[in-house]
Amino acid sequence: MSSLLLSRRDLDFLLHEWLGVASLTSRERFAEHSRETFDAVLDLSEQMATDHFASHNRAADLAEPEFDGERVHMIPEVAKALRVFADAGILAAGMDESVGGMALPQAVAQACFLWFQAANIATSAYPFLTIANANLLLAHGSPEQVESWVGPMVEGRYFGTMCLSEPQAGSSLADVTTRAEPRDDGTHRLFGNKMWISGGDHDLSENIVHLVLAKIPGGPAGVQGISLFVVPKVLESGERNDVVLAGVNHKMGYRGTVNTLLNFGEGRHTPGGEAGAVGYLVGEPHRGLAYMFHMMNEARVGVGGGAAALGYTGYLHALDYARTRIQGRSVKAKAGPPVPIISHPDVARMLLAQKSYAEGAVALVLYCARLLDEQRTGATPEDRERALLLLDVLTPIAKSWPSQWCLAGNDLAIQVHGGYGYTREYAVEQFWRDNRLNAIHEGTHGIQGLDLLGRKVVLHDGAGLRLLLETVTGAVDAARAAGLDEHADALAAAVARTAEVTATLWGAGDPAVTLANSSTYLGAVGHVVVAWMWLEQLVAVGDAQGDFYDGKRAAARYFFRHELPRTGPQFALLESLDRTTLDVRPEWF
Amino acid sequence: MSSLLLSRRDLDFLLHEWLGVASLTSRERFAEHSRETFDAVLDLSEQMATDHFASHNRAADLAEPEFDGERVHMIPEVAKALRVFADAGILAAGMDESVGGMALPQAVAQACFLWFQAANIATSAYPFLTIANANLLLAHGSPEQVESWVGPMVEGRYFGTMCLSEPQAGSSLADVTTRAEPRDDGTHRLFGNKMWISGGDHDLSENIVHLVLAKIPGGPAGVQGISLFVVPKVLESGERNDVVLAGVNHKMGYRGTVNTLLNFGEGRHTPGGEAGAVGYLVGEPHRGLAYMFHMMNEARVGVGGGAAALGYTGYLHALDYARTRIQGRSVKAKAGPPVPIISHPDVARMLLAQKSYAEGAVALVLYCARLLDEQRTGATPEDRERALLLLDVLTPIAKSWPSQWCLAGNDLAIQVHGGYGYTREYAVEQFWRDNRLNAIHEGTHGIQGLDLLGRKVVLHDGAGLRLLLETVTGAVDAARAAGLDEHADALAAAVARTAEVTATLWGAGDPAVTLANSSTYLGAVGHVVVAWMWLEQLVAVGDAQGDFYDGKRAAARYFFRHELPRTGPQFALLESLDRTTLDVRPEWF
Repeated sequence: MSSLLLSRRDLDFLLHEWLGVASLTSRERFAEHSRETFDAVLDLSEQMATDHFASHNRAADLAEPEFDGERVHMIPEVAKALRVFADAGILAAGMDESVGGMALPQAVAQACFLWFQAANIATSAYPFLTIANANLLLAHGSPEQVESWVGPMVEGRYFGTMCLSEPQAGSSLADVTTRAEPRDDGTHRLFGNKMWISGGDHDLSENIVHLVLAKIPGGPAGVQGISLFVVPKVLESGERNDVVLAGVNHKMGYRGTVNTLLNFGEGRHTPGGEAGAVGYLVGEPHRGLAYMFHMMNEARVGVGGGAAALGYTGYLHALDYARTRIQGRSVKAKAGPPVPIISHPDVARMLLAQKSYAEGAVALVLYCARLLDEQRTGATPEDRERALLLLDVLTPIAKSWPSQWCLAGNDLAIQVHGGYGYTREYAVEQFWRDNRLNAIHEGTHGIQGLDLLGRKVVLHDGAGLRLLLETVTGAVDAARAAGLDEHADALAAAVARTAEVTATLWGAGDPAVTLANSSTYLGAVGHVVVAWMWLEQLVAVGDAQGDFYDGKRAAARYFFRHELPRTGPQFALLESLDRTTLDVRPEWF
Repeated sequence: MSSLLLSRRDLDFLLHEWLGVASLTSRERFAEHSRETFDAVLDLSEQMATDHFASHNRAADLAEPEFDGERVHMIPEVAKALRVFADAGILAAGMDESVGGMALPQAVAQACFLWFQAANIATSAYPFLTIANANLLLAHGSPEQVESWVGPMVEGRYFGTMCLSEPQAGSSLADVTTRAEPRDDGTHRLFGNKMWISGGDHDLSENIVHLVLAKIPGGPAGVQGISLFVVPKVLESGERNDVVLAGVNHKMGYRGTVNTLLNFGEGRHTPGGEAGAVGYLVGEPHRGLAYMFHMMNEARVGVGGGAAALGYTGYLHALDYARTRIQGRSVKAKAGPPVPIISHPDVARMLLAQKSYAEGAVALVLYCARLLDEQRTGATPEDRERALLLLDVLTPIAKSWPSQWCLAGNDLAIQVHGGYGYTREYAVEQFWRDNRLNAIHEGTHGIQGLDLLGRKVVLHDGAGLRLLLETVTGAVDAARAAGLDEHADALAAAVARTAEVTATLWGAGDPAVTLANSSTYLGAVGHVVVAWMWLEQLVAVGDAQGDFYDGKRAAARYFFRHELPRTGPQFALLESLDRTTLDVRPEWF
């Protein structure tokens, strides 16, 4: 039986037939690699994800981490899976060889990680955060910090977290109140509470490396006064730092990932005889949010990857069910014996929708990863800069679109299963619960919409949006040259609408009305971007023959006929500068 | 604090200012009633729902019914709540006084029941099924059957179920294999398995009255050969019937409602010394499905009511949170202290969407209930016939629209709460899980789409659809007369599109292609119908002043500007007779 996690055939298509990842081996950074090494690490990832991650996905959902007031308890399969994962070196798949990494292209590393996310989103969250944490320190930490913290994270001995939110400050980081008091020895002492910290405490690793946003007294107000600190659970001296677990949150899904409230500096431990959590400043004071966004942007694409992976595995589970569940008569034949439900057009519709969402989302995530490779290793500074600019504008979409539409795909996966899909005897209900988090953490849809319309499309005088639209137009031209005129025309029209409507929105002269509908803007542009991903795939398919390619054509056709037209009324609403949500008064509800 | 279950103010508006329910008291059936008696039973329902149903909603979710191989165990609050409910006579609120009922108009009885569904959808499922069961027997049972089974159900001593599905036959009732063998004494003996039977076994009542679909050997094939039987758990003799609980399903939500696999006639009990479950034929042989659809249609509107109630309580919870959660600065003021998040336009958007879905759905459900009153007590046979015709065409929409859009509302309720909404410390995640069932049971969306496009709009040479469109056009005219031209024009255009597109679909000459997109049709017509509900409400509002009425105007405006336009691309797709889902081959996936 083929895997119910992801389709390796599809990944090979995306990485090689479309993104041409093998050609990266001509670049110095990837010169040690070849198609064979890429294949080997993908094979290994699929095998490990299947054997060690998927195997305890339900068990970890049924037995969530428990906090007894002292320690967090969880099922032993989690630690075992993470040991296997770290030992195989996958934690550092995309990192430099100098820090013990494999120096794989990010596109390949991301594809590898999708297997683990599809198999067990909750267990994969621990290495997910650890990788992002290590990458931040590699980019912004001192050599000593890299040596102390990144080395052990790469080996899987330490795990990492990101500590941004506080009970009173989730989306609004300007209101962070954790304070970091400087000490004469150059360290700081941190005092405050951090909420929603995934992986905030556990016994899975020797140590936990918290990256914490805090304010140094006397600094600027708001987000300009936020600094970033490394705050380890255990200090290098072996002393316990003054960071304590105050409680765990009980989530609807993603249950295997322990999610915590942490108290910093409450005095339960007194390192060096003094209360306060010892923290080491990363980079310059007051620039913490900028550093954190390095991690955050990577994490946002990664959240999109997780959402896409959950959508993909849900789709494959629904497909497997629809091929084997026998019920009802064919609409074409009407009589005769019952047929597999995949023969019913409404079931085929739900499967095509899921396929178009999941494969479109994975394509987008891998495209973003390929941009990161270009940003790191592109031939010219201009190439590298353009890649970064495009990645920046795509990031809120790569985060939010899979979180919205692959969740919708998981909903359809339940529907294909009928009553069975609503029971815990089948896997799809968990995928739906798990995936629901992805629209919230690392910035809600609302935050992504503001980021796209309020920042990304106006930054650099709109250069990011122009580059996006030029790039899509390039794909439209390629599609026309390949005879794909119907879809090319539809996408060209959508590109033109995106440009027009953005101009209208920012020509309104009132940012409040412009931003009032930013979620609608995010949704519309997201659909345009994923239509582009489908057109790119069709160009890559060319006139290739076979079921796999016919499937790509059918899913693209579904997306262009059933999905892209949703943007019509969205753009019309945006163009009208609708004030409904801006003008409504709280007392009217 | 006002209730977080439903808005009594809104119910009063819908029942009185819009539907004019008090005027029904001029009809003989309701002559004993008055606005005061309506108010009293609504007051009582709110109080009981709050005190006895909402109070164990989470507890029942956390401790689902358990089957120890012999009996089902559940938390004691369920039985207590149902005792209180039955003692108050609410079970028979809409039934005739001759059977112990209150003879309330259905519109009022339905509104009362919404309180219980909002408070605890799972516990309310037991009386829900019992009421539907009793109503079926009142309509189609013999006087003896009514006496034996309906009386005790009205008193709350017996509970009822409906047993349609089998493990191999959910949506496809033609494939039911439970067989009913006639015996010389006029009874039948049933043999077979029934799956997904809510309330199928428990100790909540003295007896359980199963209404079971089965085939009498020698009858016609398919659905024409299905008969309906009363199969009690305990026979009138006191003997245990040969119906046994084979297992319980473990659901994602709706957990308090025990959901069972029942075996009929496996010989564990031998009533009268013979294996086989004793069943009493209801009505004529082979007409069982038609009788069951009496119950089913009522249940479908009731499922829509449950979905609407869950959407409503989710909305009120989100509203309460948004008023009290302080975070971020106002987009208008930008500086100053943090504000309640309801001040952020994207939060207002999510609240307006929820309000438009929940209040629109409740309006539709009460409108259907009002049609049932008209069908029962209308002045002329023509009035009664028209009411039935309109109710028939609206039923698949009243079932599916709230199940889809109030679920979407529950999703938004989580989103308004941010991370808190994803935890089990807050109520909204349960509403979302609970509501997910409503798109599946009593006929999936796919089945409702086929019912609407494949049956209801073509029945009687399209008379049902014509009546619907005429009725909506009447509302459009009234709205124009009230100066509501913008919304009236939009709805008139949507009505015209509905008529055109339906004609195109049925003019295609190939039912397969027509029905391939029936779910899209259901979605589009559903939005047209709910836009009509909003226009009706605006006409009822007139030029009334105050926050409540301004809220109605804002929600209607939201629906007309943000929601109704979704139908544009849906109608265009339908008109194109799209073959994407019909032509895709299983091997392409």
